[in-house]
Amino acid sequence: MAPADADGEYLDDTPSGTVRMSVTEAYDLGEGALQRIGFSQEDARIIMGQLIDNALCGYPFTSLPRILAIASDPKTQQPRKPVSIVHETLVSAMLDGGNNVGYVAVYKTAEVAIEKARTNGFSIVGAYDSYYSGRNAYYVEKIVKEGFVTIHTACGQPHVVPPGGAQPALGTNPFCIGFPSANGPIIVDSGTAALQWGEVMLHARLDTTLPEGVGVDESGMPTRDAKDALRGGVLPFGGHKGYGLSLAIQTMGLLAGAAIPRGNVQDYGFLFITFDPGLLIPPDQFNDQVAALMDAIRATPRKPGVDEIRIPSERAFNERNRRRREGIVVAKKVVDALNAL
Amino acid sequence: MAPADADGEYLDDTPSGTVRMSVTEAYDLGEGALQRIGFSQEDARIIMGQLIDNALCGYPFTSLPRILAIASDPKTQQPRKPVSIVHETLVSAMLDGGNNVGYVAVYKTAEVAIEKARTNGFSIVGAYDSYYSGRNAYYVEKIVKEGFVTIHTACGQPHVVPPGGAQPALGTNPFCIGFPSANGPIIVDSGTAALQWGEVMLHARLDTTLPEGVGVDESGMPTRDAKDALRGGVLPFGGHKGYGLSLAIQTMGLLAGAAIPRGNVQDYGFLFITFDPGLLIPPDQFNDQVAALMDAIRATPRKPGVDEIRIPSERAFNERNRRRREGIVVAKKVVDALNAL
Repeated sequence: MAPADADGEYLDDTPSGTVRMSVTEAYDLGEGALQRIGFSQEDARIIMGQLIDNALCGYPFTSLPRILAIASDPKTQQPRKPVSIVHETLVSAMLDGGNNVGYVAVYKTAEVAIEKARTNGFSIVGAYDSYYSGRNAYYVEKIVKEGFVTIHTACGQPHVVPPGGAQPALGTNPFCIGFPSANGPIIVDSGTAALQWGEVMLHARLDTTLPEGVGVDESGMPTRDAKDALRGGVLPFGGHKGYGLSLAIQTMGLLAGAAIPRGNVQDYGFLFITFDPGLLIPPDQFNDQVAALMDAIRATPRKPGVDEIRIPSERAFNERNRRRREGIVVAKKVVDALNAL
Repeated sequence: MAPADADGEYLDDTPSGTVRMSVTEAYDLGEGALQRIGFSQEDARIIMGQLIDNALCGYPFTSLPRILAIASDPKTQQPRKPVSIVHETLVSAMLDGGNNVGYVAVYKTAEVAIEKARTNGFSIVGAYDSYYSGRNAYYVEKIVKEGFVTIHTACGQPHVVPPGGAQPALGTNPFCIGFPSANGPIIVDSGTAALQWGEVMLHARLDTTLPEGVGVDESGMPTRDAKDALRGGVLPFGGHKGYGLSLAIQTMGLLAGAAIPRGNVQDYGFLFITFDPGLLIPPDQFNDQVAALMDAIRATPRKPGVDEIRIPSERAFNERNRRRREGIVVAKKVVDALNAL
């Protein structure tokens, strides 16, 4: 693996052990690998749409390496059926994900959310029987680019320990909220676990200590040993406030049918609540106001030594423009492993 | 003031300096005082509806003493006009709060949210030109009792400093999410500031130190001196995740018309997004699943020494049943001050 900076981003000087490739080359590499492990051409293209975008936005670990994770996931070996709408009204739809990976099922759910919101100004769309959907901002940006505001929640199986608990009861339960603005989409994308579960696994594999206040062992006592936290869990971010939010997201998952496939109320559910800002305020006026709000926040006087007040998603989108021209950098080991699939 | 336990709750043995009164007596006392300071009988009754509920749920400081705060608020002296709908569609409405206190304007906004959701299964309703609306769970419970899920956000003028900032740029921006369940409403109600602004003011008045990691002074440096934090601000809860959420809530406020009355994009805005769970899943099935999820979370194995895993809102609602029978306890000083208005 190439060295990473604080944000988990590859350094872009193509260090030894990495390959720089164009977006087209990366698509070809990934789509070929996905089709060899059983995905249709359409699904392979949908999955690669996100994986390439993740690389462009500066998240290389959630890019091409994810194909290797998909290949080794037991769920990929289990039977799947096409994603289908099982219930709908003019403004709502429930989708059975058919055990398709979230990259595919949630993408199709977002498409239904857009279609219904386009006709009616509002939509609420859920999906169940799917898993791992990757970077939520990818779906949310797609919806926001159609001029809508959207709230996306995803919940999953327990990894997060409620305050006072000794075992997980909540998923890592991210939320993602997107708004159009005169300067392009503004997207807030965040998990509600104090640390992503994948990072706990990485710490355990590398034998590095967890940050303070993140992990608990199997009796609920604080631990900085990642292996202990794998047997216990992680806490929600931000104490009781984060716990409440995580609980709300798990409950939103029930609206999305989380309990339908396995009768388990602590399972995967993906929800989109989408609406046209024009229901309340002229969209152009809203878009200008959102841009003005971001300008005002960006212009906040700063603490000595701080270069900028960060606006969520802004840096990723700027980076993407650069990498579209310059290409993306992939670890050679990953390229070799994908070619060997 | 009577002594308070860890949750700011009065001890219920009517300690010296306090008066125990029935709900009816408290209504009479409060409505009389509100009418003497210029509120109509209808508005006084609406305000007292929440203030009594706050006392019953165990939040005495946000109960009758709030009338004294309303009386001394400069906004109460400024002209107000009736709350009115300025734009609406079948599923949406924008309300001009007419400089009415939030207790009144947001109550009426919640009523419109219910009415529109009842007809169409969904509503999005916003209100601007209002301020202080008190306990958001009060409005959300009212909506949830009609069988709806609702997301309520409220944003205000800057008190919260974004990470890296030296001055406030965001309101304390609470969110409140409510779900019906077979065992009654489940309500998650939380601010996004690390500490409520009122608590910072209280610390400054009592000359007590702030908790670690909450306040910054006017140059953005961490401080535990509440007076310094009054000139600087408080941080969002939970670092960058809480910042993102606060920013999203401020942006939701623009949908609710926050910038309309004064052209200020960092101002008060109150939004309700409300829908019938039946758009996605049979409501009875959803209500049972929500109850089962809460049971599952409550049954999480516990850390040694922990008595229970708390479910948001549950304790307040249980307390309310008890206090309805036993009456509420009010500081005698507050009673005297209200009688003197």
